Amino acid sequence: MIKGKQSIAFEESPYILSSASVVGKKEGEGPLGKMFDMVEEENLFGEDTWEAAESAMQKQACLLALGKAHLKPEDIQFLYGGDLLRQGVATSMGVEELNIPMFGLFGACSTSGEALALASMGVAAGYGESMLAVTSSHFGSAEKEFRFPLSYASQRPLSAHWTVTGSGAFVVGKKRSHVRVTGVTVGKIVDYGLKDSQNMGACMAPAACDTITRNLEDFGRTPDDYNRIITGDLGYVGQSILFDLMRGKRIDIKKNHMDCGMTIFDQNTQDTHAGGSGCGCAATTLSAYILPKIERGEWKRVLFVPTGALMSTVSYNEGESVPGIAHGIVLEHC
Amino acid sequence: MIKGKQSIAFEESPYILSSASVVGKKEGEGPLGKMFDMVEEENLFGEDTWEAAESAMQKQACLLALGKAHLKPEDIQFLYGGDLLRQGVATSMGVEELNIPMFGLFGACSTSGEALALASMGVAAGYGESMLAVTSSHFGSAEKEFRFPLSYASQRPLSAHWTVTGSGAFVVGKKRSHVRVTGVTVGKIVDYGLKDSQNMGACMAPAACDTITRNLEDFGRTPDDYNRIITGDLGYVGQSILFDLMRGKRIDIKKNHMDCGMTIFDQNTQDTHAGGSGCGCAATTLSAYILPKIERGEWKRVLFVPTGALMSTVSYNEGESVPGIAHGIVLEHC
Repeated sequence: MIKGKQSIAFEESPYILSSASVVGKKEGEGPLGKMFDMVEEENLFGEDTWEAAESAMQKQACLLALGKAHLKPEDIQFLYGGDLLRQGVATSMGVEELNIPMFGLFGACSTSGEALALASMGVAAGYGESMLAVTSSHFGSAEKEFRFPLSYASQRPLSAHWTVTGSGAFVVGKKRSHVRVTGVTVGKIVDYGLKDSQNMGACMAPAACDTITRNLEDFGRTPDDYNRIITGDLGYVGQSILFDLMRGKRIDIKKNHMDCGMTIFDQNTQDTHAGGSGCGCAATTLSAYILPKIERGEWKRVLFVPTGALMSTVSYNEGESVPGIAHGIVLEHC
Repeated sequence: MIKGKQSIAFEESPYILSSASVVGKKEGEGPLGKMFDMVEEENLFGEDTWEAAESAMQKQACLLALGKAHLKPEDIQFLYGGDLLRQGVATSMGVEELNIPMFGLFGACSTSGEALALASMGVAAGYGESMLAVTSSHFGSAEKEFRFPLSYASQRPLSAHWTVTGSGAFVVGKKRSHVRVTGVTVGKIVDYGLKDSQNMGACMAPAACDTITRNLEDFGRTPDDYNRIITGDLGYVGQSILFDLMRGKRIDIKKNHMDCGMTIFDQNTQDTHAGGSGCGCAATTLSAYILPKIERGEWKRVLFVPTGALMSTVSYNEGESVPGIAHGIVLEHC
């Protein structure tokens, strides 16, 4: 069951019973636009604040995922959720009304991986028939939280990411479906001492490299054993660093690597600089684009590796570095 | 294994192999002063910022707990940790050098319960021989995060708490000790619509009531089945509300209730208003005062219920309510 140093191979692998994606207008205009379950034309989602909008989005994603699995909130044993905001308020306020016993998480943009890992571990251990994993990010609330309020119209360097407005929710359970979580690789904090919060791809690439390498070692696999190795939101800058770091370990993942941050927006027409980011980036891409391909059997086995940059405005302003973390989820067609 | 609606009774209960508490000067002068493993006279812990001080404290607590269990960081499968600061930076920066695969958590002041629950669930499921649960809070970093920088010398209402400067770390594992985690009750978010962040006892009491009631129901117990029912940091205001709410359910916990926030400071000489609070309050009291009593068999069975108020300065300033959450950990002498 414990596999190598950081991984778990499930003896009885849990299934992803259903998932849902709710996104904002810009995401709806991107290459995956038609694949999302819900595109809201109005980025406040009918609320008064960005934070409340993010909560509304998260609740909606949970309800859609539950509906697809024909489950009610009371059928869910535990909910594992988190977001990027201070003290995870988007999640607290978002899932409150569902009334499900819950574990609040923080793993920056890697939170979808953290939530899926814990939910899968919970189901595989027999702690419940079905669990819910949810995460979100919102461009408006994230800019306010980490950079400047939107109305300041501050300029962003080309290495900066565009936080995805979106929430992805996943029901993990014992009931059969066409996608199983067969294993997880839990990430370590990896710190190369980088301090530029406007270049998160560079901050997160070492963590992605560490987790991918560890996953391959723990499971005794090569990159070819995966149809895709999919990082969360390294973006264009982070991807090239990841390739360099992997080359240093004599592992070539170029031909089967995909990054959600480079997939969710169109680089030529949507001007998102380094690409998309945020908890919602990997989560909505997983729900709308990746899982359907695994369900159909187009991809047999995928390593999903959402990446997070661990920082706050306080740690940044106090001159601390921005370490990264990445969690690996092995998804297989069945 | 699943017990009732929100609880788990472990078939093979994990043990608490060791624990450690590191606190600041004021805590060292309190009633539990001589019981803590380490009292730092200088609240910056040799660092330049409150945040770095909190990280230093957390790392120290982990190393002490590991040392007591005769374990090295590489012997720990997974670490579960969190704190009160935005984006959990005290934990990220604190445990980074330990190099243990980790799950970042946020449950406000209930985080010690969340971490112990997940660590116990992980060990009981066979996901590792030993896990580490850690949490912290710091008066200086918390005041800056949630209220005003200390140098503003702002006045606080009598219903306000005093955030404990302290970190508690716990090694949970398969190896025998004299304390077992026999069950957990995972908390729901409970919101009575209160909006006063300076009266967190009132905000958290409904969640404590909910989790305690649920625990008693799920395990088919009465309060007399526990030597103590111990809440995290309801304080003087929250305790009286908890008693009222429990009375409404015809459950009397008055004679065996204890609150860590009312235990860690001396109400007559230390002027902490409603009592102590913060992730570190319940965690250090558990490590220094509660666990030794269970180890010695003075208490046979204890329900430990750390309580959290889910809010941020942003949610507060935007007029949102402050919901609470509480997780129940059943600890037994063996």
